[in-house]
Amino acid sequence: MKIAILGADGYLGWPTAVNLAFKKNKLLLIDNYVKRRLMTNFNKKPLVLSPKLDKKVKYLKSHGCQVNYENIDCCNYDKLYNSLKKFKPDAVIHYAELPSAPYSMIGEKEAWLTLQNNLRSTFNLVWCVKAINKNCHIIKLGTMGEYGTPNIDIEEGWINVKHNNRNQKFMYPRQASSLYHTSKIMDTDLLWFYVRMYDLRVTDLMQGPVYGVLDNEFMSNNNLQNTYSYDDIFGTVLNRFIVQAVAGMPLTIYGSGNQIRGYINIKDSLKCIDLALNNPPKAGKLNINNQFTEQFSVNQLAKKVKSALKEINISAEIKKIINPRKEKEKHYYNAKNTNLLKLGLKPRLLTNKEIIKLANYVIGYKKKINKNIIKPKTKWV
Amino acid sequence: MKIAILGADGYLGWPTAVNLAFKKNKLLLIDNYVKRRLMTNFNKKPLVLSPKLDKKVKYLKSHGCQVNYENIDCCNYDKLYNSLKKFKPDAVIHYAELPSAPYSMIGEKEAWLTLQNNLRSTFNLVWCVKAINKNCHIIKLGTMGEYGTPNIDIEEGWINVKHNNRNQKFMYPRQASSLYHTSKIMDTDLLWFYVRMYDLRVTDLMQGPVYGVLDNEFMSNNNLQNTYSYDDIFGTVLNRFIVQAVAGMPLTIYGSGNQIRGYINIKDSLKCIDLALNNPPKAGKLNINNQFTEQFSVNQLAKKVKSALKEINISAEIKKIINPRKEKEKHYYNAKNTNLLKLGLKPRLLTNKEIIKLANYVIGYKKKINKNIIKPKTKWV
Repeated sequence: MKIAILGADGYLGWPTAVNLAFKKNKLLLIDNYVKRRLMTNFNKKPLVLSPKLDKKVKYLKSHGCQVNYENIDCCNYDKLYNSLKKFKPDAVIHYAELPSAPYSMIGEKEAWLTLQNNLRSTFNLVWCVKAINKNCHIIKLGTMGEYGTPNIDIEEGWINVKHNNRNQKFMYPRQASSLYHTSKIMDTDLLWFYVRMYDLRVTDLMQGPVYGVLDNEFMSNNNLQNTYSYDDIFGTVLNRFIVQAVAGMPLTIYGSGNQIRGYINIKDSLKCIDLALNNPPKAGKLNINNQFTEQFSVNQLAKKVKSALKEINISAEIKKIINPRKEKEKHYYNAKNTNLLKLGLKPRLLTNKEIIKLANYVIGYKKKINKNIIKPKTKWV
Repeated sequence: MKIAILGADGYLGWPTAVNLAFKKNKLLLIDNYVKRRLMTNFNKKPLVLSPKLDKKVKYLKSHGCQVNYENIDCCNYDKLYNSLKKFKPDAVIHYAELPSAPYSMIGEKEAWLTLQNNLRSTFNLVWCVKAINKNCHIIKLGTMGEYGTPNIDIEEGWINVKHNNRNQKFMYPRQASSLYHTSKIMDTDLLWFYVRMYDLRVTDLMQGPVYGVLDNEFMSNNNLQNTYSYDDIFGTVLNRFIVQAVAGMPLTIYGSGNQIRGYINIKDSLKCIDLALNNPPKAGKLNINNQFTEQFSVNQLAKKVKSALKEINISAEIKKIINPRKEKEKHYYNAKNTNLLKLGLKPRLLTNKEIIKLANYVIGYKKKINKNIIKPKTKWV
């Protein structure tokens, strides 16, 4: 298949590229390194920083992969159009979004950069596909955070509402708790609108926080390794907990720790992309899958880490700090995730073994941990 | 009260300004004439074109009104901020959006201009109010079109959903049938998010298509008269029907004509703004009012016009043409509009007398009618 990956330099974009390259697909990788620049500007150096794409692509090519890289800002319609027009993809995987909730809450400039980058890249992709090949399958990363924490079960994308003895199937109402997550709601609004109008084929993946590393032959190679962040802006919670534990710092919980979310291992995240690629929707249909494998409260997550790491003689303390975010700290949470299971996903659960594997990976970089970049600085006020 | 009006040059913005100026409010009017430029670019000259704001403001001042005008693009955060910072409004009425569904469906450039203009102006206003005075009441014009045409009753902004024996109050799910209307859904997403985060006070008015003219002493004065459009891009349906009838053209109905919408007289629209101004929400609350007074199908609307104009010996033909839009042509429609009635709105219904009054106004400009700018040219494909 010919697949374009937008945002191919990121924590998910890059391993997706490696995975698909070795499966004999022809790939076009697009990234403008905006996240690298933000990491530099905010002094949030990752524990591991992936080499740049030209180097990585060269290495993949030397192993027989058909892959090319272009430095394009997906917010530039003409450049994106020309590139995709030439490549003629069968599918485009769209990761080219600013993914940080705290970043989006810093101030007006950061909020607008997030909103316009995410919405415009999605908008441009829609118009490119409409102009070039409406059958091209758009796979878009959304987030479970779009749903927020409603007091009823979270269905997968849609809900049947019975009201005054009449029925209507609606897109499941969304209500997020950061500007970043709100930008993803708007992406979904936009995709759903254009799917209806222009008979596009779109899969929107509502993904929960991702954790873990790829430990296969290629991804552990120095030439191809993935970025691993643990700071307050670009790190995700479990990856951060592991770094805190390895560094002998307490695992910091924002607020009560009763906030429940659905989590997923990065290896499963890649499998979900494979499943989406192999199951394109019909024209005019928007597939929505909730992409997580297990629900935990933050407290449960911290306890799991603490308990697993005892086995390798790391004793982790758990510490509650004032929640910098404005979010419900006690809430009902029951989200469905059957679509991907039906397609064949076999979840890799968060066992002690998985946690220890991750910790051993982080221990290899222990000297590089910067304890000063972890404490949350952005407040939701 | 000190009130800023964004988009003060428009069909609704301008009469709102006149109405509030003569009620002894202190006004700051903001507009960058973007709609005038688009009308010129697309050769869609209105039947009546309002004088420019500097001239109109001069006239208002000569009648003792406290009103000033600034030519500012509301998409420019710094300029909007500096202007509002100096003026310190108690309320801001936000009309500064590109309001045309057909315009937003022309192509990629028009779609993005609509989306980014509408979203960014709303975004900037939120951040200005947050920075300057969080108690300032934001009154934002939304549209009934955000709801689309669901198979259940349309409530006012919110709906209680019972699902698997649990309950949740949600923002009413929205699903629009143009990119313009979708941009308004995103505005609502954005406002609701920031209301929750920053305890703002916002009223979002879901308005139906507006018709009519202001025939009071001031608005019929040549120095203050309002713009009246009837073309396929900037005209609204009833105003267009009247022009077609006066010009001896058939009233053109898109498709079956069974499309039902909620309509409102421009005089009632101004009253609704007064009511919103006098009933600001509490901090952290988003008030949503459905702003229309009567529901009609397009067929009913055309028949009303035809029947009323017989009384003044205008015989109007009704003609169905292929629907350029992608929308449901037969659907359930039952929208609530009790919030504004409870606040005291006394609807001015679409009687024969109102239709004849409007026709007599248009007859005064009969020679200026350009029959070539009415036929719809933008297709939803």
